[in-house]
Amino acid sequence: MPDDMAKRKYIVNAITEVFEQHAFRQIETPAIELNKTLSGKYGEEGDRLMFKVLPRGEKLNSLANQSIEFIKSNIEEALRYDLTVPFARMVVDQRNHINLPFKRYQIQNVWRADRPQKGRFREFTQCDADVVGPAGIIQEAELLHIYHRSFHTLNIPVEIRLNHRSLLQGLAELAGASDKLVAFTIGLDKLDKIGWNGVEEEWRQAGIPDIQPEVKELLLTKGTLEKLLPILEKALESIPSAKRGLLELRQLSSILSNAPLGNTALKLDLSLARGLNYYTGCIFEVSALGADMGSIGGGGRYDDLTGIFGWKDLSGVGISFGLDRIQLVMEQLNSFPNDIGLNAEVLFANMDEASSIIGFKLAQELRSKGMRCEVYPVAAKMKKQIDFAVKSNIPFLVILGENERLNQEVTLRNLATGEQSSFSQNDLYEKLK
Amino acid sequence: MPDDMAKRKYIVNAITEVFEQHAFRQIETPAIELNKTLSGKYGEEGDRLMFKVLPRGEKLNSLANQSIEFIKSNIEEALRYDLTVPFARMVVDQRNHINLPFKRYQIQNVWRADRPQKGRFREFTQCDADVVGPAGIIQEAELLHIYHRSFHTLNIPVEIRLNHRSLLQGLAELAGASDKLVAFTIGLDKLDKIGWNGVEEEWRQAGIPDIQPEVKELLLTKGTLEKLLPILEKALESIPSAKRGLLELRQLSSILSNAPLGNTALKLDLSLARGLNYYTGCIFEVSALGADMGSIGGGGRYDDLTGIFGWKDLSGVGISFGLDRIQLVMEQLNSFPNDIGLNAEVLFANMDEASSIIGFKLAQELRSKGMRCEVYPVAAKMKKQIDFAVKSNIPFLVILGENERLNQEVTLRNLATGEQSSFSQNDLYEKLK
Repeated sequence: MPDDMAKRKYIVNAITEVFEQHAFRQIETPAIELNKTLSGKYGEEGDRLMFKVLPRGEKLNSLANQSIEFIKSNIEEALRYDLTVPFARMVVDQRNHINLPFKRYQIQNVWRADRPQKGRFREFTQCDADVVGPAGIIQEAELLHIYHRSFHTLNIPVEIRLNHRSLLQGLAELAGASDKLVAFTIGLDKLDKIGWNGVEEEWRQAGIPDIQPEVKELLLTKGTLEKLLPILEKALESIPSAKRGLLELRQLSSILSNAPLGNTALKLDLSLARGLNYYTGCIFEVSALGADMGSIGGGGRYDDLTGIFGWKDLSGVGISFGLDRIQLVMEQLNSFPNDIGLNAEVLFANMDEASSIIGFKLAQELRSKGMRCEVYPVAAKMKKQIDFAVKSNIPFLVILGENERLNQEVTLRNLATGEQSSFSQNDLYEKLK
Repeated sequence: MPDDMAKRKYIVNAITEVFEQHAFRQIETPAIELNKTLSGKYGEEGDRLMFKVLPRGEKLNSLANQSIEFIKSNIEEALRYDLTVPFARMVVDQRNHINLPFKRYQIQNVWRADRPQKGRFREFTQCDADVVGPAGIIQEAELLHIYHRSFHTLNIPVEIRLNHRSLLQGLAELAGASDKLVAFTIGLDKLDKIGWNGVEEEWRQAGIPDIQPEVKELLLTKGTLEKLLPILEKALESIPSAKRGLLELRQLSSILSNAPLGNTALKLDLSLARGLNYYTGCIFEVSALGADMGSIGGGGRYDDLTGIFGWKDLSGVGISFGLDRIQLVMEQLNSFPNDIGLNAEVLFANMDEASSIIGFKLAQELRSKGMRCEVYPVAAKMKKQIDFAVKSNIPFLVILGENERLNQEVTLRNLATGEQSSFSQNDLYEKLK
């Protein structure tokens, strides 16, 4: 419906502008992909929740009186399930037309056959920005700035939590769990939900030895890069697998101290584990301060986006914005401006043909100056027209009765206060703007 | 791909702005509709070309070893085939939340399983604006202004052809074919393709009597409302079925003489017959002057949009924009401005970590002023970075060597001319903007 659309557009426009300042360019991919492109890419749940497209014509007829296995193996098309796999497919298809580093953003709907419930729809919009090609930590810095500037524009105070896969590896090594990295991080990822004792219990069951107090303290610390990095550099000094992470975070820290993130808080959080089997470098997660909501964005560095489609070792780093949650947060925090183009600014009442002709002419003049105007289409009763304006949140009514027309005047009524005044038709724009 | 997307966005933004000035508000409907909502609404071809969605879970299993009729009758969902039927469905569903007159625009993709060919895709974007509720000719005037202002902004000179179904009825009556209105208009609609003799031949076969010379002359005349309307008023004076058309066009003429359409030519064309079994009042069709293309927009008044969903006699009037054709026309006529946000405006070369840190800081400053900037992510060879800029159509390169850093300067190179100069880092924005 229009009110929701206007809010969604306001959010998307703000983010898009920031993307474009950072030289990301928009692409779109088709909603319908080949089934073989998508199948098996999202685990068992993905295959179950994916919308498949029915064959047509002869191919449909051939499904008659066949086993379910035959039917399933003759499905050729499916609906987009996320933006990442189609992006990877597209990068490989278009490899001769793409100039690396290739920076793209994409804002499109995806479909998942989840049971619909509050805040979860079968069709929803994803909003991703990724860059693939030569990898430099500058790109991580850029994505952090994109988050900062977008949420700053949207009037949402945020905290970005940061981690690095190589630090997680280093910490696992320090904890004597380097051969159990997956169990180590899966446990750690549940810290918010089950608390430290719960994590330790999970680890114990996975055969991870008891954690030394100094490692526990590291894992539970959150803080700025400036404060935490020296501590980590010391603690992980002798751990080879942590070297890349320490180096990259040190570089990131230098970049950001020259180009700071303004009022956005950036915190190193060593318990942040987000999709470990996918990300290979920095990991980000954004949450809104003062709002009751999970993460409203996240992302990280991955080293092999396109391998599944035959282009090995193409590095990438990306972030996404959770548009539905961002809208909910903005409603909670009252972050939307009062006027986001929801409604017409003025209604020209229609008293008779003569008044509608003058009203239409004046409306076209205001419109050409960028004002949103409405002319009531028929000469209905004034009460009905005022009801329409009030229900539609249109604040002003222009009345063009016989007197007004004779004197080339208008009467302007403020529908909230009931005040009204008459003046020359030429002054209407000045009075309204 | 990004270049196409940027063009499409430029077009959509221009049209959207005009819609919003005219107090149209955006809605979206889901891509997946119930099959029973869409089936049978688009004729036999529609049912054949519509994408259907495969059932999932138990419902899918129940299709095993079944006849094709059973399979077809167990399809519950289909993809959006146009914007009009889902809009009508939505208006009826939301009737308690809609304030009439309800003005909506909608820009969404639709899917048709046509054989893909040049200029025809299986997924394409439709762009419609409609108003439903109390009907007044002001609405037709508004839609004509929307066409004018949109195409004026897009730098496409256009001609809008106009007709009215009641005039077609009146002319059929004058020609003694009032009982053969459909055959009369189907023949007339082919005038462009088969010429007048061809039309007469079709009519003869349909049993329509020979046309009097004065009716033929009327049918073949195109001209402004001002010129043609008096002639028609005389010729159709005694024909009751033409009365509504003559009255409405007279009102439209009064409105437009007070609020003219600028450089857009509006022509009455009595041979325009566009989708007669749907439209019931005014009919529009837009073509670009000087371009080799069919119509780039069209629409009209219909008196029963929502009847199929149980809300009878809700009048509406709407127009659509053919986005793909508009883009092709703009390419033919060179109507796109040179800079439509295609590329970054400046690339910061990356010579080493120190230069990238300063480059990044300066880039963030320019970005915060709205400029599109790129920082090369790694310290690659200069030739490689310049190649990247040239291939990406980035016009300027910023170099931050040791000398520049020492003096807090930058060197700016124009990549088209090879000219370069050095100046204070503080002056960069002024030099580039």
